[in-house]
Amino acid sequence: MFLSELIPVRDAFRILDENQRSTETETLNLLYAHKRVLAEDLKARFDSPPFDRSAMDGYAVRAEDTFGSSPENPSRFTVTDSIGAGDVSDVDVDRGEAVKIATGAPIPRGADAVVMEEYTVSSGSEISVVRPVFPGENVSPAGEDFRAGDTVLSKGTLLRPAEIAMAASAGYSQLRVYKKPSVKVIITGNELMEPSADLEPGKIPNSNLYTLKALVESAGGDAEVSHAPDDMDIIVDEIRGAVKEHDMVITTGGTAVSRGDVVVDAVDSLGDVLFHGVAMRPGKPVAFGIVEGKPVFMLSGYPVAAMVQFDVLARYYLLRMQHLDYSHRTVKRRCLGKVASGPGRTEYVRANADNGTVKPVQSRGSGIIRSMVESNAYIVIDENLEGIAEGEECEVLLFDSMTL
Amino acid sequence: MFLSELIPVRDAFRILDENQRSTETETLNLLYAHKRVLAEDLKARFDSPPFDRSAMDGYAVRAEDTFGSSPENPSRFTVTDSIGAGDVSDVDVDRGEAVKIATGAPIPRGADAVVMEEYTVSSGSEISVVRPVFPGENVSPAGEDFRAGDTVLSKGTLLRPAEIAMAASAGYSQLRVYKKPSVKVIITGNELMEPSADLEPGKIPNSNLYTLKALVESAGGDAEVSHAPDDMDIIVDEIRGAVKEHDMVITTGGTAVSRGDVVVDAVDSLGDVLFHGVAMRPGKPVAFGIVEGKPVFMLSGYPVAAMVQFDVLARYYLLRMQHLDYSHRTVKRRCLGKVASGPGRTEYVRANADNGTVKPVQSRGSGIIRSMVESNAYIVIDENLEGIAEGEECEVLLFDSMTL
Repeated sequence: MFLSELIPVRDAFRILDENQRSTETETLNLLYAHKRVLAEDLKARFDSPPFDRSAMDGYAVRAEDTFGSSPENPSRFTVTDSIGAGDVSDVDVDRGEAVKIATGAPIPRGADAVVMEEYTVSSGSEISVVRPVFPGENVSPAGEDFRAGDTVLSKGTLLRPAEIAMAASAGYSQLRVYKKPSVKVIITGNELMEPSADLEPGKIPNSNLYTLKALVESAGGDAEVSHAPDDMDIIVDEIRGAVKEHDMVITTGGTAVSRGDVVVDAVDSLGDVLFHGVAMRPGKPVAFGIVEGKPVFMLSGYPVAAMVQFDVLARYYLLRMQHLDYSHRTVKRRCLGKVASGPGRTEYVRANADNGTVKPVQSRGSGIIRSMVESNAYIVIDENLEGIAEGEECEVLLFDSMTL
Repeated sequence: MFLSELIPVRDAFRILDENQRSTETETLNLLYAHKRVLAEDLKARFDSPPFDRSAMDGYAVRAEDTFGSSPENPSRFTVTDSIGAGDVSDVDVDRGEAVKIATGAPIPRGADAVVMEEYTVSSGSEISVVRPVFPGENVSPAGEDFRAGDTVLSKGTLLRPAEIAMAASAGYSQLRVYKKPSVKVIITGNELMEPSADLEPGKIPNSNLYTLKALVESAGGDAEVSHAPDDMDIIVDEIRGAVKEHDMVITTGGTAVSRGDVVVDAVDSLGDVLFHGVAMRPGKPVAFGIVEGKPVFMLSGYPVAAMVQFDVLARYYLLRMQHLDYSHRTVKRRCLGKVASGPGRTEYVRANADNGTVKPVQSRGSGIIRSMVESNAYIVIDENLEGIAEGEECEVLLFDSMTL
């Protein structure tokens, strides 16, 4: 089964969007929520800080009692209590009174400022203050960061360390998040064997097995990997089993147009092949289908083609599967070389970008893994362009922008 | 114990560099090596590809036998064998002979090109070729990607998916890598309690526990977290136990200059405090020491200060601990606002950067977690500058550039 017309990349994305599946939710302890996506709007359970807090170690006072204070003319206070961090005090601070207070402790009633310890002189139960404070000085007011009921994080937010801090501060130690997509990776090819020093004649190392696992992880998924021979019945069985237990299936090998197309035929027999062949380079012989409601990406056996197909299509889908508002966001860079490109296909040129420029990597064959090792970005050349002149601005997709 | 002079940020980095510790090596299956750092130079165990491979499904022939072929004047060949992927053939391809060959299969002796299947017409054991091929056409020559003995990956390389592919292709399913740093995180503060809807009076949620775990993970470490009260004996015991079992210790709380400084005193009693107080904002009250040969970072209790101190100092150290050639690499962006800054301290201004510009985040208090949620970068203002004018270029440290 081969859809003989290559479809443009934009049509491939449209088909992916129309068939986007998403993961369910689960409740996780906040300790394990890093890099997950929030599945609920989070409303603060209290003000933050929850009370007027002292921002310094010192003495809580009524600010007006310190007005005019100086080393020559200090104001005097009676110390009536002491509040450590985590403690509370019942005393009211009246005129001429002070309460010793630690950083983070709640300001006692009546007080409206904190005099830093170094601007006081202590003698017994009395202190002298040698410098005035203004009302509110050294006080973090309740609700300064957020108010009870505020939506502090929205559904769909990726939880970086700062968002983890925010969730905890808002009173949550458990969060409703989206599950990590579980991905079954099936590497096909009789010519593949486990990497070792002893290659059998005609065999090559199975690099895709390891690469696809890492690629799936870099996009927030969990991968289970296996190797299948180029045998229609076995591959049908593998895919039939995989769609029962996983959210997504990725295969490599057996998609080339003129070959047996064993994988594409297998998917066609089990479900629907929605595209086969995309006008992109490298990576043209890529297919996508749905089996039992689950997405199946059929990538090339060539390592570089498989990586590019993953990055362009499967990664996009996998990130969106986690309810992230992801799309490939390119940046502009000045191209340090001339890049030829045929019209009618989108080129993903392996390249090395810095803050202002991008340099295409020389070797462009689908077998040249070195070219990916040397790259940190793709130059994306639209199907309507005929290459890029040296010094011209071009669109660049940074690898760093494509991971969680 | 307080080193009363704040040291410049560059001196803090110098002290960290002089006291840099590194993790040991371990051997890992390549399946688990993603984001690890390679601890050996990797030499290819064979050529890649290991033999001249067919790049297409078709027929292996001697190219000169096809010269002049056309649909009107096809050249005829006797098919003497068939080679599937993973197979080998013993036949020699003589003049007028062809061997059916699959993509990825080794080119048989005598042949030097592959005619694509679609340019042939088959009848019984004979084929007609309707188009000439040049010598080497549709053949991936042995060693095209790399040669046996080539150093394909160097010690110290971060293993992204492409490097995983390279290691497998070079014949390795096991790699010598550096261990992940094991980090003990000790959060101090009597005022902290587990986040929940029911805050006790005077208490605040312990957000640092969760945040520091995520921060350590984002820098490639494994974190074990605990909460300790502001009690000298307990903290001394915790740190003494932690340095026996972990590669690094991070504390939060108890570093403020005028407070009990319980953590800094504890480290001082167990080992050496090498700095306490850095001329940076936010994050001035940060300390670093060595206990039993292990690094101890003492961060603030304030969540934002702790995050900035982690990013600037502990993250730098933790990434280098894994033998990565890491330093904070800033990029230039045009600043969309005016930023005030006092000379004599390095400012890390929370900010939101895009490809060309950076916008400082408004709220700058150390308690305002929201400000970190709104940020994806720091504007770094050198201690010799007095702020940035609107529209001026400034140095920006992108969060994305600081993670594995």
